[in-house]
Amino acid sequence: MRFVDIISKKRYGGALTEEEIIFFIKEYVKGNIPDYQVSALLMAIVFNGMNLEEISVLTREMMHSGDVIDLSAIKGIKVDKHSTGGVGDKTSLVLGPLVASFGVPVAKMSGRGLGHTGGTLDKLESIPSLTIELSGERFINQVNTVGCAIIGQTGNLVPADKKLYALRDVTATVESIPLIASSIMSKKLASGSDTILLDVKYGSGAFMKTLEQGRELARLMVNIGNSLGRDTRAILTNMDQPLGLAIGNNLEVKEAVVTLHGHGPHDFSELCKRAAAIMLEQAKVVKDQKDALGLIEEKIKSGEAFAKFREMVKAQGGDLSYIDDLTKFPVTKNIIPVLSTKEGYVEHIDSLAVGVGGMKLGAGRATVDDVLDMSAGIILNKKVGDFVKKGETLATLYSNKESKTNNEVLKEVHDAYLISKEKIGTPPIISDYIK
Amino acid sequence: MRFVDIISKKRYGGALTEEEIIFFIKEYVKGNIPDYQVSALLMAIVFNGMNLEEISVLTREMMHSGDVIDLSAIKGIKVDKHSTGGVGDKTSLVLGPLVASFGVPVAKMSGRGLGHTGGTLDKLESIPSLTIELSGERFINQVNTVGCAIIGQTGNLVPADKKLYALRDVTATVESIPLIASSIMSKKLASGSDTILLDVKYGSGAFMKTLEQGRELARLMVNIGNSLGRDTRAILTNMDQPLGLAIGNNLEVKEAVVTLHGHGPHDFSELCKRAAAIMLEQAKVVKDQKDALGLIEEKIKSGEAFAKFREMVKAQGGDLSYIDDLTKFPVTKNIIPVLSTKEGYVEHIDSLAVGVGGMKLGAGRATVDDVLDMSAGIILNKKVGDFVKKGETLATLYSNKESKTNNEVLKEVHDAYLISKEKIGTPPIISDYIK
Repeated sequence: MRFVDIISKKRYGGALTEEEIIFFIKEYVKGNIPDYQVSALLMAIVFNGMNLEEISVLTREMMHSGDVIDLSAIKGIKVDKHSTGGVGDKTSLVLGPLVASFGVPVAKMSGRGLGHTGGTLDKLESIPSLTIELSGERFINQVNTVGCAIIGQTGNLVPADKKLYALRDVTATVESIPLIASSIMSKKLASGSDTILLDVKYGSGAFMKTLEQGRELARLMVNIGNSLGRDTRAILTNMDQPLGLAIGNNLEVKEAVVTLHGHGPHDFSELCKRAAAIMLEQAKVVKDQKDALGLIEEKIKSGEAFAKFREMVKAQGGDLSYIDDLTKFPVTKNIIPVLSTKEGYVEHIDSLAVGVGGMKLGAGRATVDDVLDMSAGIILNKKVGDFVKKGETLATLYSNKESKTNNEVLKEVHDAYLISKEKIGTPPIISDYIK
Repeated sequence: MRFVDIISKKRYGGALTEEEIIFFIKEYVKGNIPDYQVSALLMAIVFNGMNLEEISVLTREMMHSGDVIDLSAIKGIKVDKHSTGGVGDKTSLVLGPLVASFGVPVAKMSGRGLGHTGGTLDKLESIPSLTIELSGERFINQVNTVGCAIIGQTGNLVPADKKLYALRDVTATVESIPLIASSIMSKKLASGSDTILLDVKYGSGAFMKTLEQGRELARLMVNIGNSLGRDTRAILTNMDQPLGLAIGNNLEVKEAVVTLHGHGPHDFSELCKRAAAIMLEQAKVVKDQKDALGLIEEKIKSGEAFAKFREMVKAQGGDLSYIDDLTKFPVTKNIIPVLSTKEGYVEHIDSLAVGVGGMKLGAGRATVDDVLDMSAGIILNKKVGDFVKKGETLATLYSNKESKTNNEVLKEVHDAYLISKEKIGTPPIISDYIK
């Protein structure tokens, strides 16, 4: 088999055979196919796409290119959730304990933040002494005893994706639905859970700019997961504004704790409950999602959900005094209000601009080597649909930076708010559900 | 400037600026842009094309990536011709001397054959003792004294094309009109002639499968050449059958000599005369092409055209006794007729199949390291429009190979002939002329 013939086939719109895709992934990982041929194939895929069968085979081969985590030592149906990446997305911090409080095991491997989106691991590490580096044995043991654990990736998971992603990043081939879907799904499938719930973001702050694009990606991933034998479902959530009010590591942990107590921001609380209801249905421990939503309210009110979070933090060595008394978390030396220069209704908040603003304040990384400021970030005082008067606070910056950076971010966050004279309704957080 | 942004721009259908194209070619030749990024850009160009301005700048930058031949020491308007590659195309062997017999200088750099098409240099070298390796000084001197010279490429011409072509070859990005046009034109412009006549082949045996595709490529190259200050014109010639009757190195030299004597096959003679008439018009030594055609007939009848070929061969050290007595050329030990199994009119002769057949007999190279058999090849006894009876000879194989290869080629050449019950006209050799 000559790789140039595979490139040519895709260039002219053909569908690759199972044998050709196996050859591609196996030989590329071994280093037998040069990057310059693979990047040409990737660009041909960008233009000519792949059909469901090709994408399923590609995903399966990528998944098996390295270690596949074996969670069989954990009793029960293991559920997992994956978000395609949003600003202010601290969902995993709430969902893990909430679902685990029903006795459903959550063995989650998360990532770090880069660019305008934060990472669950970074957020967790803002709790003093907490570790996200557990051995495989301790990880499984924690899930079996506590019910949930969130750790960094262990083992050599999907090396094909590592190589392909690095190449896509420098060849303008990241934005391709078949390539995004196979990348996400190969990693989720390799992490070993029995069910997968995908939170596909769309809107100005996401890869997928429209609901339709988001639906296409979601349907594809659901199809791939189901075709490879995992109960896979997806929700479509809007990123035309950040999720919740807090952006920044310890700010988001505090918001997660408040939400577990039942007092979180409306959109974020709603998303957590709806997602948990789906996961509980996937785990077959509730009659249906409606039934689940009632039970979820009880778990929050009774304090069981927060208690599960406490157990998890304790098991991972975190200092419980911080989550028991949120005022103990360090606060930045500068707290700067962003004032409105207009009166009206908030129509839109540019998530990308807010995410980049948070990053500049120290809440995120521009490059992988950047060091985070755990207390830096942004709190949104107004969200879409809220009325705001001239001079009222739109958002608040938390910063240890110099005034030059603060002023720059102040302007950017101010400009991220689109204010309308017309009354704007509160948008629904979940736009669609695909199973 | 980041190269990934240039790839992304082209991926999304944007036009690259002059600055971006300069950066691309300069830094790629220097080795500062990796092949894996360039192949992604090439594939994006395959899909999204380039506009005339982009292609002109690309051609100019490629041309200036290495040496540009200075022919200013040669008096008069230097004319050149380039064929996009056909089976049985020995046009340069006739055109050079024919045009030079009018006192118009022809300083031609040619190439070797690869795959199903032969190369002018290989054909010339079938004349014993002839050299195609002249120093720059001897080359210019020969053109000034004899009027024409055909040599191998000297100097470091268009290194950008060498790198790009090698990459295109292994990434399925050869077939792209902007890339083909810039590759051909950068080399022609760097070889220093004042005028360029392009012979763009189309049909089953050519890159361009249809007349329309051929016209598109031809118009583009004419535009590029003229925009960069050279009188550039093109003819479109049909490759739905090989050109002339002979395919193979000394077989083609013999056909060229016969044609210079005025007794060549109709299609090939016609092409040489029409192309020469255009080149003479470009050199401004005739009133118009009609005038030129009359004068060309005289140059052939008077023996001046052949005499010029003799002078050129002599100047390059060739043994004149061979071209004076064509029976001196060695002949293969096997001469095998390909017999028709049908009666009817020849409708089509698959040039690619005949070219590959000749290659297998030793007339061409499958890889650059193959050694040629100068006497091997194929003579077509029937051409499109000819009537053939069952058992009559369609073509004749000249071979020193074993019977296994001969039988294989025999079948392929037989099958290359499409015989029709309907009467078929003789197709015109030149389908269009673009200036």
